[in-house]
Amino acid sequence: MPKNTAENVTADEVVQADAHQHSYIANNSKADYLKRLRRIEGQARGLQRMVEEEKYCIDILTQVAAMKKALEAVALGLLDEHMAHCVAGAVRAGGEEADLKLKEASDAIARLVRS
Amino acid sequence: MPKNTAENVTADEVVQADAHQHSYIANNSKADYLKRLRRIEGQARGLQRMVEEEKYCIDILTQVAAMKKALEAVALGLLDEHMAHCVAGAVRAGGEEADLKLKEASDAIARLVRS
Amino acid sequence: MPKNTAENVTADEVVQADAHQHSYIANNSKADYLKRLRRIEGQARGLQRMVEEEKYCIDILTQVAAMKKALEAVALGLLDEHMAHCVAGAVRAGGEEADLKLKEASDAIARLVRS
Amino acid sequence: MPKNTAENVTADEVVQADAHQHSYIANNSKADYLKRLRRIEGQARGLQRMVEEEKYCIDILTQVAAMKKALEAVALGLLDEHMAHCVAGAVRAGGEEADLKLKEASDAIARLVRS
Repeated sequence: MPKNTAENVTADEVVQADAHQHSYIANNSKADYLKRLRRIEGQARGLQRMVEEEKYCIDILTQVAAMKKALEAVALGLLDEHMAHCVAGAVRAGGEEADLKLKEASDAIARLVRS
Repeated sequence: MPKNTAENVTADEVVQADAHQHSYIANNSKADYLKRLRRIEGQARGLQRMVEEEKYCIDILTQVAAMKKALEAVALGLLDEHMAHCVAGAVRAGGEEADLKLKEASDAIARLVRS
Repeated sequence: MPKNTAENVTADEVVQADAHQHSYIANNSKADYLKRLRRIEGQARGLQRMVEEEKYCIDILTQVAAMKKALEAVALGLLDEHMAHCVAGAVRAGGEEADLKLKEASDAIARLVRS
Repeated sequence: MPKNTAENVTADEVVQADAHQHSYIANNSKADYLKRLRRIEGQARGLQRMVEEEKYCIDILTQVAAMKKALEAVALGLLDEHMAHCVAGAVRAGGEEADLKLKEASDAIARLVRS
Protein backbone atom coordinates (compact mmCIF):
# COMPACT_ATOMS: atom_id res chain seq x y z
CA MET A 1 0.00 0.00 0.00
CA PRO A 2 1.44 3.38 -1.04
CA LYS A 3 2.23 5.52 1.95
CA ASN A 4 0.73 8.96 2.02
CA THR A 5 3.44 11.37 2.96
CA ALA A 6 1.28 14.41 3.62
CA GLU A 7 1.41 15.25 7.25
CA ASN A 8 -1.97 16.50 8.20
CA VAL A 9 -4.21 14.10 6.34
CA THR A 10 -6.65 12.00 8.29
CA ALA A 11 -6.89 8.28 7.72
CA ASP A 12 -10.16 8.92 5.87
CA GLU A 13 -8.55 11.32 3.47
CA VAL A 14 -5.95 8.75 2.65
CA VAL A 15 -8.72 6.36 1.74
CA GLN A 16 -10.41 8.92 -0.47
CA ALA A 17 -7.17 9.52 -2.28
CA ASP A 18 -6.88 6.01 -3.53
CA ALA A 19 -9.57 4.50 -5.66
CA HIS A 20 -8.15 0.99 -5.63
CA GLN A 21 -6.72 0.40 -2.23
CA HIS A 22 -8.56 0.91 0.97
CA SER A 23 -6.66 1.27 4.19
CA TYR A 24 -9.68 0.28 6.24
CA ILE A 25 -7.93 -2.84 7.45
CA ALA A 26 -5.43 -2.16 10.18
CA ASN A 27 -2.14 -3.92 9.45
CA ASN A 28 -2.40 -6.34 12.35
CA SER A 29 -5.98 -7.27 11.55
CA LYS A 30 -5.05 -7.71 7.88
CA ALA A 31 -2.63 -10.49 8.85
CA ASP A 32 -5.38 -11.97 10.99
CA TYR A 33 -7.89 -11.97 8.13
CA LEU A 34 -5.38 -13.57 5.81
CA LYS A 35 -4.74 -16.28 8.38
CA ARG A 36 -8.43 -16.95 8.79
CA LEU A 37 -9.00 -17.03 5.04
CA ARG A 38 -6.11 -19.46 4.58
CA ARG A 39 -7.75 -21.68 7.18
CA ILE A 40 -11.04 -21.41 5.27
CA GLU A 41 -9.21 -22.34 2.07
CA GLY A 42 -7.84 -25.35 3.96
CA GLN A 43 -11.36 -26.28 5.01
CA ALA A 44 -12.44 -26.17 1.36
CA ARG A 45 -9.59 -28.54 0.50
CA GLY A 46 -10.49 -30.76 3.44
CA LEU A 47 -14.04 -30.97 2.14
CA GLN A 48 -12.79 -32.09 -1.26
CA ARG A 49 -10.77 -34.82 0.41
CA MET A 50 -13.79 -35.93 2.41
CA VAL A 51 -15.98 -36.11 -0.70
CA GLU A 52 -13.17 -37.83 -2.63
CA GLU A 53 -12.87 -40.44 0.12
CA GLU A 54 -16.64 -40.64 0.51
CA LYS A 55 -16.55 -39.83 4.18
CA TYR A 56 -19.76 -39.98 6.10
CA CYS A 57 -22.11 -37.30 4.79
CA ILE A 58 -23.05 -35.99 8.23
CA ASP A 59 -19.38 -35.36 9.03
CA ILE A 60 -19.02 -33.47 5.76
CA LEU A 61 -22.07 -31.36 6.61
CA THR A 62 -20.63 -30.60 10.06
CA GLN A 63 -17.49 -29.29 8.34
CA VAL A 64 -19.53 -27.23 5.93
CA ALA A 65 -21.41 -25.63 8.83
CA ALA A 66 -18.11 -24.84 10.58
CA MET A 67 -16.73 -23.32 7.38
CA LYS A 68 -19.86 -21.23 6.89
CA LYS A 69 -19.50 -19.89 10.43
CA ALA A 70 -15.83 -19.06 9.88
CA LEU A 71 -16.68 -17.24 6.67
CA GLU A 72 -19.47 -15.35 8.37
CA ALA A 73 -17.11 -14.26 11.14
CA VAL A 74 -14.66 -12.89 8.58
CA ALA A 75 -17.48 -11.01 6.84
CA LEU A 76 -18.73 -9.51 10.10
CA GLY A 77 -15.21 -8.42 11.05
CA LEU A 78 -14.60 -6.78 7.68
CA LEU A 79 -17.97 -5.08 7.84
CA ASP A 80 -17.14 -3.65 11.27
CA GLU A 81 -13.92 -2.15 10.04
CA HIS A 82 -15.64 -0.85 6.93
CA MET A 83 -18.32 0.90 8.96
CA ALA A 84 -15.86 2.31 11.49
CA HIS A 85 -13.61 3.66 8.74
CA CYS A 86 -15.12 4.15 5.29
CA VAL A 87 -18.73 4.70 6.29
CA ALA A 88 -17.93 6.84 9.34
CA GLY A 89 -15.40 8.82 7.27
CA ALA A 90 -17.94 9.49 4.55
CA VAL A 91 -20.58 10.47 7.11
CA ARG A 92 -18.17 12.96 8.69
CA ALA A 93 -17.34 14.36 5.27
CA GLY A 94 -21.07 14.55 4.57
CA GLY A 95 -22.86 15.09 1.28
CA GLU A 96 -23.87 12.53 -1.31
CA GLU A 97 -20.93 10.27 -0.57
CA ALA A 98 -22.26 9.71 2.95
CA ASP A 99 -25.65 8.57 1.63
CA LEU A 100 -23.99 6.39 -0.95
CA LYS A 101 -21.75 4.69 1.61
CA LEU A 102 -24.66 4.09 3.99
CA LYS A 103 -26.77 2.61 1.20
CA GLU A 104 -23.90 0.42 0.07
CA ALA A 105 -23.33 -0.88 3.61
CA SER A 106 -27.05 -1.61 4.01
CA ASP A 107 -27.09 -3.60 0.79
CA ALA A 108 -24.03 -5.57 1.86
CA ILE A 109 -25.66 -6.35 5.22
CA ALA A 110 -28.84 -7.50 3.48
CA ARG A 111 -26.81 -9.82 1.22
CA LEU A 112 -25.09 -11.30 4.28
CA VAL A 113 -28.31 -11.76 6.24
CA ARG A 114 -29.98 -13.40 3.25
CA SER A 115 -27.05 -15.52 2.07
CA MET B 1 -14.69 -47.26 -5.40
CA PRO B 2 -11.38 -48.70 -6.64
CA LYS B 3 -9.12 -49.97 -3.88
CA ASN B 4 -5.58 -48.64 -3.79
CA THR B 5 -3.02 -51.42 -3.76
CA ALA B 6 0.13 -49.32 -4.20
CA GLU B 7 2.72 -49.46 -1.47
CA ASN B 8 3.86 -45.93 -1.14
CA VAL B 9 0.47 -44.45 -0.71
CA THR B 10 0.06 -41.02 0.80
CA ALA B 11 -1.99 -40.40 3.88
CA ASP B 12 -4.82 -39.38 1.60
CA GLU B 13 -4.64 -42.58 -0.36
CA VAL B 14 -4.63 -44.65 2.81
CA VAL B 15 -7.91 -43.13 3.66
CA GLN B 16 -9.29 -44.31 0.35
CA ALA B 17 -9.09 -47.84 1.66
CA ASP B 18 -10.90 -46.87 4.81
CA ALA B 19 -13.74 -49.08 5.88
CA HIS B 20 -15.84 -46.03 6.68
CA GLN B 21 -16.44 -45.01 3.11
CA HIS B 22 -19.98 -44.22 2.18
CA SER B 23 -21.05 -44.76 -1.38
CA TYR B 24 -24.01 -42.40 -1.04
CA ILE B 25 -22.62 -40.10 -3.70
CA ALA B 26 -23.34 -41.23 -7.21
CA ASN B 27 -20.15 -41.17 -9.27
CA ASN B 28 -21.28 -38.43 -11.59
CA SER B 29 -22.47 -36.21 -8.78
CA LYS B 30 -19.22 -36.84 -6.90
CA ALA B 31 -17.26 -35.26 -9.75
CA ASP B 32 -19.71 -32.39 -9.70
CA TYR B 33 -19.26 -31.82 -5.94
CA LEU B 34 -15.49 -31.88 -6.30
CA LYS B 35 -15.71 -29.31 -9.08
CA ARG B 36 -17.91 -27.05 -6.98
CA LEU B 37 -15.63 -27.41 -3.94
CA ARG B 38 -12.58 -26.59 -6.04
CA ARG B 39 -14.36 -23.46 -7.17
CA ILE B 40 -15.12 -22.62 -3.53
CA GLU B 41 -11.46 -23.17 -2.67
CA GLY B 42 -10.64 -20.75 -5.50
CA GLN B 43 -13.05 -18.22 -4.00
CA ALA B 44 -11.23 -18.52 -0.66
CA ARG B 45 -7.96 -17.81 -2.44
CA GLY B 46 -9.54 -14.91 -4.32
CA LEU B 47 -10.65 -13.43 -1.01
CA GLN B 48 -7.10 -13.61 0.34
CA ARG B 49 -5.89 -11.76 -2.74
CA MET B 50 -8.58 -9.11 -2.27
CA VAL B 51 -7.64 -8.59 1.39
CA GLU B 52 -3.93 -8.62 0.50
CA GLU B 53 -4.50 -5.93 -2.13
CA GLU B 54 -6.91 -4.09 0.17
CA LYS B 55 -9.71 -4.15 -2.35
CA TYR B 56 -12.87 -2.29 -1.53
CA CYS B 57 -14.52 -3.91 1.47
CA ILE B 58 -17.99 -4.02 -0.07
CA ASP B 59 -16.62 -5.99 -3.03
CA ILE B 60 -15.00 -8.44 -0.62
CA LEU B 61 -18.30 -8.86 1.23
CA THR B 62 -20.10 -9.50 -2.04
CA GLN B 63 -17.63 -12.30 -2.74
CA VAL B 64 -18.10 -13.72 0.75
CA ALA B 65 -21.88 -13.79 0.25
CA ALA B 66 -21.44 -15.59 -3.08
CA MET B 67 -19.11 -18.11 -1.48
CA LYS B 68 -21.53 -18.71 1.39
CA LYS B 69 -24.31 -19.41 -1.12
CA ALA B 70 -22.11 -21.81 -3.09
CA LEU B 71 -21.22 -23.64 0.10
CA GLU B 72 -24.84 -23.81 1.14
CA ALA B 73 -25.80 -25.28 -2.23
CA VAL B 74 -23.17 -28.02 -1.81
CA ALA B 75 -24.47 -28.78 1.68
CA LEU B 76 -28.08 -29.00 0.50
CA GLY B 77 -27.10 -31.28 -2.35
CA LEU B 78 -25.14 -33.61 -0.07
CA LEU B 79 -27.99 -33.64 2.41
CA ASP B 80 -30.43 -34.64 -0.34
CA GLU B 81 -28.30 -37.58 -1.35
CA HIS B 82 -27.77 -38.55 2.27
CA MET B 83 -31.50 -38.58 2.95
CA ALA B 84 -32.34 -40.42 -0.24
CA HIS B 85 -29.70 -43.08 0.44
CA CYS B 86 -28.50 -43.48 4.03
CA VAL B 87 -31.58 -42.26 5.84
CA ALA B 88 -34.07 -43.94 3.50
CA GLY B 89 -32.01 -47.14 3.63
CA ALA B 90 -31.97 -47.15 7.43
CA VAL B 91 -35.69 -46.42 7.55
CA ARG B 92 -36.39 -49.35 5.24
CA ALA B 93 -34.18 -51.60 7.40
CA GLY B 94 -36.02 -50.29 10.46
CA GLY B 95 -35.09 -50.57 14.10
CA GLU B 96 -32.83 -48.33 16.16
CA GLU B 97 -30.59 -47.48 13.23
CA ALA B 98 -33.54 -45.78 11.51
CA ASP B 99 -34.19 -43.57 14.53
CA LEU B 100 -30.51 -42.78 14.86
CA LYS B 101 -30.19 -41.79 11.21
CA LEU B 102 -33.27 -39.60 11.37
CA LYS B 103 -32.01 -37.88 14.52
CA GLU B 104 -28.60 -37.36 12.97
CA ALA B 105 -30.10 -35.83 9.83
CA SER B 106 -32.27 -33.53 11.95
CA ASP B 107 -29.26 -32.32 13.88
CA ALA B 108 -27.31 -31.69 10.68
CA ILE B 109 -30.24 -29.71 9.26
CA ALA B 110 -30.45 -27.64 12.46
CA ARG B 111 -26.74 -26.86 12.24
CA LEU B 112 -27.14 -25.74 8.64
CA VAL B 113 -30.20 -23.60 9.34
CA ARG B 114 -28.46 -21.97 12.30
CA SER B 115 -25.00 -21.56 10.78
CA MET C 1 -59.10 -34.37 14.55
CA PRO C 2 -61.38 -37.27 13.62
CA LYS C 3 -60.15 -40.46 15.13
CA ASN C 4 -59.66 -43.37 12.86
CA THR C 5 -61.60 -46.24 14.36
CA ALA C 6 -60.24 -49.01 12.21
CA GLU C 7 -58.19 -51.34 14.34
CA ASN C 8 -55.35 -52.54 12.22
CA VAL C 9 -54.26 -49.37 10.49
CA THR C 10 -50.82 -47.99 11.11
CA ALA C 11 -50.30 -44.36 11.93
CA ASP C 12 -48.98 -43.90 8.41
CA GLU C 13 -52.06 -45.33 6.84
CA VAL C 14 -54.18 -42.93 8.80
CA VAL C 15 -52.16 -40.11 7.35
CA GLN C 16 -52.53 -41.47 3.84
CA ALA C 17 -56.28 -41.73 4.27
CA ASP C 18 -56.72 -38.06 4.93
CA ALA C 19 -55.67 -35.51 2.40
CA HIS C 20 -56.25 -32.56 4.70
CA GLN C 21 -55.26 -33.62 8.15
CA HIS C 22 -51.95 -35.04 9.09
CA SER C 23 -51.48 -36.83 12.35
CA TYR C 24 -47.75 -36.28 12.30
CA ILE C 25 -47.90 -34.12 15.39
CA ALA C 26 -48.18 -36.08 18.61
CA ASN C 27 -50.94 -34.61 20.79
CA ASN C 28 -48.61 -33.42 23.50
CA SER C 29 -46.21 -31.79 21.08
CA LYS C 30 -49.16 -30.16 19.29
CA ALA C 31 -50.04 -28.29 22.48
CA ASP C 32 -46.40 -27.31 22.79
CA TYR C 33 -46.24 -25.94 19.23
CA LEU C 34 -49.40 -23.95 19.77
CA LYS C 35 -47.95 -22.46 22.94
CA ARG C 36 -44.74 -21.51 21.18
CA LEU C 37 -46.62 -20.00 18.25
CA ARG C 38 -48.81 -17.97 20.61
CA ARG C 39 -45.65 -16.65 22.20
CA ILE C 40 -44.33 -15.77 18.74
CA GLU C 41 -47.61 -13.99 17.99
CA GLY C 42 -47.10 -12.09 21.24
CA GLN C 43 -43.59 -11.15 20.11
CA ALA C 44 -45.06 -9.78 16.86
CA ARG C 45 -47.47 -7.66 18.89
CA GLY C 46 -44.66 -6.55 21.19
CA LEU C 47 -42.68 -5.41 18.15
CA GLN C 48 -45.63 -3.31 16.97
CA ARG C 49 -45.78 -1.67 20.38
CA MET C 50 -42.06 -0.98 20.28
CA VAL C 51 -42.28 0.60 16.83
CA GLU C 52 -45.42 2.51 17.86
CA GLU C 53 -43.61 3.87 20.91
CA GLU C 54 -40.44 4.44 18.88
CA LYS C 55 -38.33 2.36 21.21
CA TYR C 56 -34.63 2.21 20.59
CA CYS C 57 -33.99 0.55 17.26
CA ILE C 58 -31.29 -1.79 18.58
CA ASP C 59 -33.71 -3.14 21.20
CA ILE C 60 -36.27 -3.77 18.47
CA LEU C 61 -33.67 -5.61 16.40
CA THR C 62 -32.74 -7.74 19.41
CA GLN C 63 -36.39 -8.74 19.69
CA VAL C 64 -36.59 -9.52 16.00
CA ALA C 65 -33.54 -11.79 16.26
CA ALA C 66 -35.12 -13.59 19.24
CA MET C 67 -38.37 -14.02 17.34
CA LYS C 68 -36.52 -15.35 14.29
CA LYS C 69 -34.78 -17.92 16.48
CA ALA C 70 -38.07 -18.97 18.09
CA LEU C 71 -39.65 -19.37 14.67
CA GLU C 72 -36.69 -21.37 13.44
CA ALA C 73 -36.93 -23.70 16.43
CA VAL C 74 -40.61 -24.35 15.67
CA ALA C 75 -39.76 -25.07 12.04
CA LEU C 76 -36.98 -27.48 12.97
CA GLY C 77 -39.24 -29.28 15.42
CA LEU C 78 -42.03 -29.67 12.87
CA LEU C 79 -39.55 -30.84 10.27
CA ASP C 80 -38.26 -33.51 12.66
CA GLU C 81 -41.71 -34.88 13.25
CA HIS C 82 -42.49 -34.71 9.55
CA MET C 83 -39.39 -36.71 8.65
CA ALA C 84 -39.91 -39.25 11.43
CA HIS C 85 -43.53 -39.80 10.43
CA CYS C 86 -44.58 -38.80 6.92
CA VAL C 87 -41.25 -39.20 5.17
CA ALA C 88 -40.26 -42.38 7.00
CA GLY C 89 -43.77 -43.78 6.43
CA ALA C 90 -43.57 -43.07 2.71
CA VAL C 91 -40.08 -44.55 2.50
CA ARG C 92 -41.28 -47.74 4.19
CA ALA C 93 -44.25 -47.91 1.81
CA GLY C 94 -41.82 -47.32 -1.07
CA GLY C 95 -42.57 -46.38 -4.65
CA GLU C 96 -43.02 -42.96 -6.16
CA GLU C 97 -44.55 -41.53 -3.00
CA ALA C 98 -41.25 -42.11 -1.18
CA ASP C 99 -39.30 -40.14 -3.78
CA LEU C 100 -41.89 -37.39 -3.75
CA LYS C 101 -41.81 -37.07 0.03
CA LEU C 102 -38.00 -37.00 0.10
CA LYS C 103 -37.91 -34.34 -2.63
CA GLU C 104 -40.53 -32.29 -0.81
CA ALA C 105 -38.61 -32.46 2.47
CA SER C 106 -35.39 -31.44 0.70
CA ASP C 107 -37.09 -28.42 -0.84
CA ALA C 108 -38.53 -27.40 2.53
CA ILE C 109 -35.08 -27.69 4.13
CA ALA C 110 -33.56 -25.56 1.36
CA ARG C 111 -36.22 -22.89 1.91
CA LEU C 112 -35.44 -22.87 5.63
CA VAL C 113 -31.68 -22.72 5.15
CA ARG C 114 -32.03 -19.90 2.63
CA SER C 115 -34.74 -17.90 4.39
CA MET D 1 -42.75 6.91 31.30
CA PRO D 2 -44.09 10.43 31.90
CA LYS D 3 -47.87 10.51 31.82
CA ASN D 4 -49.58 12.82 29.38
CA THR D 5 -52.32 14.68 31.23
CA ALA D 6 -54.33 15.80 28.19
CA GLU D 7 -57.65 14.03 28.14
CA ASN D 8 -58.32 13.11 24.61
CA VAL D 9 -54.92 11.88 23.60
CA THR D 10 -54.67 8.55 21.95
CA ALA D 11 -52.41 5.86 23.29
CA ASP D 12 -50.00 6.73 20.52
CA GLU D 13 -49.83 10.38 21.50
CA VAL D 14 -49.10 9.43 25.07
CA VAL D 15 -46.20 7.42 23.86
CA GLN D 16 -44.86 10.34 21.85
CA ALA D 17 -44.21 12.16 25.11
CA ASP D 18 -41.96 9.41 26.33
CA ALA D 19 -38.43 10.43 27.15
CA HIS D 20 -37.08 7.26 25.57
CA GLN D 21 -38.57 7.75 22.15
CA HIS D 22 -36.29 7.64 19.18
CA SER D 23 -37.49 9.59 16.22
CA TYR D 24 -35.41 7.57 13.79
CA ILE D 25 -38.47 6.25 12.01
CA ALA D 26 -39.97 8.68 9.54
CA ASN D 27 -43.72 8.96 10.08
CA ASN D 28 -44.68 7.38 6.80
CA SER D 29 -42.29 4.48 7.20
CA LYS D 30 -43.55 3.96 10.76
CA ALA D 31 -47.04 3.27 9.43
CA ASP D 32 -45.50 0.92 6.90
CA TYR D 33 -43.58 -1.03 9.58
CA LEU D 34 -46.70 -1.33 11.70
CA LYS D 35 -48.61 -2.69 8.72
CA ARG D 36 -45.90 -5.24 8.00
CA LEU D 37 -45.71 -6.30 11.64
CA ARG D 38 -49.48 -6.71 11.79
CA ARG D 39 -49.23 -8.94 8.75
CA ILE D 40 -46.48 -10.93 10.51
CA GLU D 41 -48.72 -11.22 13.59
CA GLY D 42 -51.43 -12.53 11.26
CA GLN D 43 -48.98 -15.08 9.88
CA ALA D 44 -48.25 -16.25 13.45
CA ARG D 45 -51.98 -16.71 13.99
CA GLY D 46 -52.32 -18.49 10.66
CA LEU D 47 -49.60 -20.90 11.72
CA GLN D 48 -51.48 -21.71 14.92
CA ARG D 49 -54.57 -22.44 12.88
CA MET D 50 -52.57 -24.71 10.57
CA VAL D 51 -51.08 -26.64 13.50
CA GLU D 52 -54.48 -26.78 15.20
CA GLU D 53 -56.06 -28.23 12.05
CA GLU D 54 -53.01 -30.44 11.46
CA LYS D 55 -52.40 -29.07 8.00
CA TYR D 56 -49.70 -30.66 5.91
CA CYS D 57 -46.33 -30.06 7.56
CA ILE D 58 -44.61 -28.92 4.38
CA ASP D 59 -47.24 -26.22 3.89
CA ILE D 60 -46.66 -25.06 7.46
CA LEU D 61 -42.90 -24.92 6.85
CA THR D 62 -43.47 -22.89 3.68
CA GLN D 63 -45.43 -20.38 5.75
CA VAL D 64 -42.71 -20.28 8.40
CA ALA D 65 -40.08 -19.53 5.73
CA ALA D 66 -42.26 -16.73 4.34
CA MET D 67 -42.74 -15.29 7.83
CA LYS D 68 -39.01 -15.45 8.52
CA LYS D 69 -38.32 -13.54 5.31
CA ALA D 70 -40.93 -10.90 6.17
CA LEU D 71 -39.39 -10.48 9.62
CA GLU D 72 -35.92 -10.23 8.13
CA ALA D 73 -37.08 -7.52 5.72
CA VAL D 74 -38.50 -5.50 8.64
CA ALA D 75 -35.21 -5.88 10.53
CA LEU D 76 -33.14 -4.79 7.55
CA GLY D 77 -35.38 -1.77 7.00
CA LEU D 78 -35.16 -0.70 10.64
CA LEU D 79 -31.41 -1.19 10.60
CA ASP D 80 -31.11 1.06 7.53
CA GLU D 81 -32.98 3.86 9.22
CA HIS D 82 -31.01 3.37 12.41
CA MET D 83 -27.70 3.65 10.60
CA ALA D 84 -28.80 6.63 8.51
CA HIS D 85 -30.06 8.47 11.59
CA CYS D 86 -28.72 7.39 14.99
CA VAL D 87 -25.37 6.01 13.88
CA ALA D 88 -24.68 8.74 11.32
CA GLY D 89 -25.76 11.37 13.85
CA ALA D 90 -23.43 10.00 16.51
CA VAL D 91 -20.58 9.77 14.02
CA ARG D 92 -21.07 13.41 13.04
CA ALA D 93 -21.15 14.40 16.73
CA GLY D 94 -18.01 12.32 17.24
CA GLY D 95 -16.43 11.16 20.45
CA GLU D 96 -17.18 8.06 22.46
CA GLU D 97 -20.83 8.01 21.51
CA ALA D 98 -19.85 7.46 17.89
CA ASP D 99 -17.76 4.40 18.77
CA LEU D 100 -20.51 3.08 21.01
CA LYS D 101 -23.16 3.43 18.32
CA LEU D 102 -20.95 1.77 15.71
CA LYS D 103 -20.21 -1.13 18.06
CA GLU D 104 -23.87 -1.50 18.91
CA ALA D 105 -24.86 -1.58 15.25
CA SER D 106 -22.18 -4.18 14.51
CA ASP D 107 -23.46 -6.39 17.29
CA ALA D 108 -27.03 -6.08 16.06
CA ILE D 109 -25.92 -7.00 12.53
CA ALA D 110 -24.05 -10.03 13.86
CA ARG D 111 -27.16 -11.17 15.75
CA LEU D 112 -29.23 -10.84 12.57
CA VAL D 113 -26.72 -12.67 10.39
CA ARG D 114 -26.44 -15.47 12.95
CA SER D 115 -30.11 -15.77 13.89
